[in-house]
Amino acid sequence: MNDRFLRACRREPVDATPVWFLRQAGRYMAEYRAIRQHHSLLEICRTPRLAAEVTLQPIDRLDVDAAIVFADILLPLEPLGAGLEFTPGDGPTLARPVRSAADVDRLRDVDVAADLGFVGESIREAKRALGGRVPLIGFAGGPFTVASYLIEGGSTRNFVATKRLLYSEPEAWHRLLGRLARLTLEYLEMQLDAGADAVQIFDSWVGALSPRDYRTLVAPHARAILEPLARRGVPVIHFGTQTAGMLRDLRDAGGTVIGLDWRVDLARGWEAVGEGVAVQGNLDPVALLGPWPELARAARAVLEDASGRPGHVFNVGHGILPETPVDAVRDLVRFVREESARPR
Amino acid sequence: MNDRFLRACRREPVDATPVWFLRQAGRYMAEYRAIRQHHSLLEICRTPRLAAEVTLQPIDRLDVDAAIVFADILLPLEPLGAGLEFTPGDGPTLARPVRSAADVDRLRDVDVAADLGFVGESIREAKRALGGRVPLIGFAGGPFTVASYLIEGGSTRNFVATKRLLYSEPEAWHRLLGRLARLTLEYLEMQLDAGADAVQIFDSWVGALSPRDYRTLVAPHARAILEPLARRGVPVIHFGTQTAGMLRDLRDAGGTVIGLDWRVDLARGWEAVGEGVAVQGNLDPVALLGPWPELARAARAVLEDASGRPGHVFNVGHGILPETPVDAVRDLVRFVREESARPR
Repeated sequence: MNDRFLRACRREPVDATPVWFLRQAGRYMAEYRAIRQHHSLLEICRTPRLAAEVTLQPIDRLDVDAAIVFADILLPLEPLGAGLEFTPGDGPTLARPVRSAADVDRLRDVDVAADLGFVGESIREAKRALGGRVPLIGFAGGPFTVASYLIEGGSTRNFVATKRLLYSEPEAWHRLLGRLARLTLEYLEMQLDAGADAVQIFDSWVGALSPRDYRTLVAPHARAILEPLARRGVPVIHFGTQTAGMLRDLRDAGGTVIGLDWRVDLARGWEAVGEGVAVQGNLDPVALLGPWPELARAARAVLEDASGRPGHVFNVGHGILPETPVDAVRDLVRFVREESARPR
Repeated sequence: MNDRFLRACRREPVDATPVWFLRQAGRYMAEYRAIRQHHSLLEICRTPRLAAEVTLQPIDRLDVDAAIVFADILLPLEPLGAGLEFTPGDGPTLARPVRSAADVDRLRDVDVAADLGFVGESIREAKRALGGRVPLIGFAGGPFTVASYLIEGGSTRNFVATKRLLYSEPEAWHRLLGRLARLTLEYLEMQLDAGADAVQIFDSWVGALSPRDYRTLVAPHARAILEPLARRGVPVIHFGTQTAGMLRDLRDAGGTVIGLDWRVDLARGWEAVGEGVAVQGNLDPVALLGPWPELARAARAVLEDASGRPGHVFNVGHGILPETPVDAVRDLVRFVREESARPR
């Protein structure tokens, strides 16, 4: 197996910096759009054969160093009883958002094997199809991010309903996050048991909080997921965006690899998280829409920021946008591999 | 005059921490909504008598330590020829966005006195009405933020059109920002000549960029505005959001006060900008929607982070939301004043 990704996560020397991309399977790829013509996002997630097929599309096309199972961070909200739908253009909508302590108590108990076993099955199918070519990453949403969708009932700009609940009913908030944390841990353990080689927690919106609120309202629950996972000895990537002011806090909550977005120089971000962890990132995904010389310049800057020590996984700082040209992504993979393999 | 605000901006000792709020005049106030029933946002901005009235509403109601002239950061886009409208609910829309070098060259020359003189008039009216009670802040949008509206044609999530232009046509980008910087400087000098006691640059969305892109693509133009203003000896507040990873770069671009959002602990943010400047911030505005004990706790944390050295202006990290209870804002002003005046 090409184990660059796993070696970098463990901060071992590599022949070239491993590279994969957040949302590397998605609408920017014609192969993916072809499948979406016949199947909804949720159908693909729930059909392991299709999910595995989509998982492998970027491996075949881009030559990246890791696959990530095709799924969605909101899948656990359906068995919780929130009523999950994806409406074209508008993104996720939840029929029954959580707005009170009573709503938290009404959430159903999730039987991970029965309710979310299809994700484990997708992992098994994808592992078979990969045939050991590259490692496979499992994932779940982080507690703040999943809770925010559950509370807002969809996407949000200012997280008003979420923050109202956490400020007004901190007990209900902690009960909710405690439940989500237990569910998420079980869900990720199931994914590891199914063969995932690493896992990533997408606490994508956690940067909406002040560091102080993060430490008291989220970090204990993130820790309850991350610590038991790390004890299994697998790479655990802890990812958020807009986190430049709370990187140390994210790191303290756990994870063996910290995901950085582009809003911080990678070198400064690594300094902030400190020794003892790897970092993943942190190209601005919009750079992929620019001309090649600018893209190469931006990618080289990331590699230079990371040079001189092991433990860097090249990635974008947030998901690849639908309007991204596939060729730019493929050229970038080749560039990162060649540029990082050059003796300095 | 109550000069707490000006003294804090100059890092001089104060009897209590000065406090004012971004968007302290706005929809959350019944007095403002009453005026909006009869006048559009642009009408208020263009009618000095109305603009002055709205400017004073929070002074009368909240007892804040500074007024800020009622205007909009997008006002200069109209005389530039971009066609500015505000549509209810959707925010600003520009009929003729800038997408190319040719579009940049088609922008009209703005005669600040003739085209934007009404803002100077609003300042003169507001100064008269204030009668020396508190200082008055003038303001303008920062070069990245104004350019992004001009290019996107309105609000945006991912700044794709903006970044496409700056990556693909860096020369057109620099020409555009150079023009905006000259216009902004002249506009702010006019506001100072009209009697503004301080100015703030709202480069609100600059945190969408990587620090590296900020340094090369924006900082020189921000500097071209901020340096000549600072030479006039007035406080110049340099504000952005999502800037925790580029605070040092913002400070290097200029400003005698750096605005912080809540995504960084104020103490850590102050450390990042270094000695020699004051800081403004950084309460999460959504905390104003929570119960009083939580709001007081959050405000006290900001004050504690700032304690032990002069040069803190208390503020929210981004504008007050329309659903904010006015009483919470008023209680917060009193709390900040009393809490910061207590001997430690």
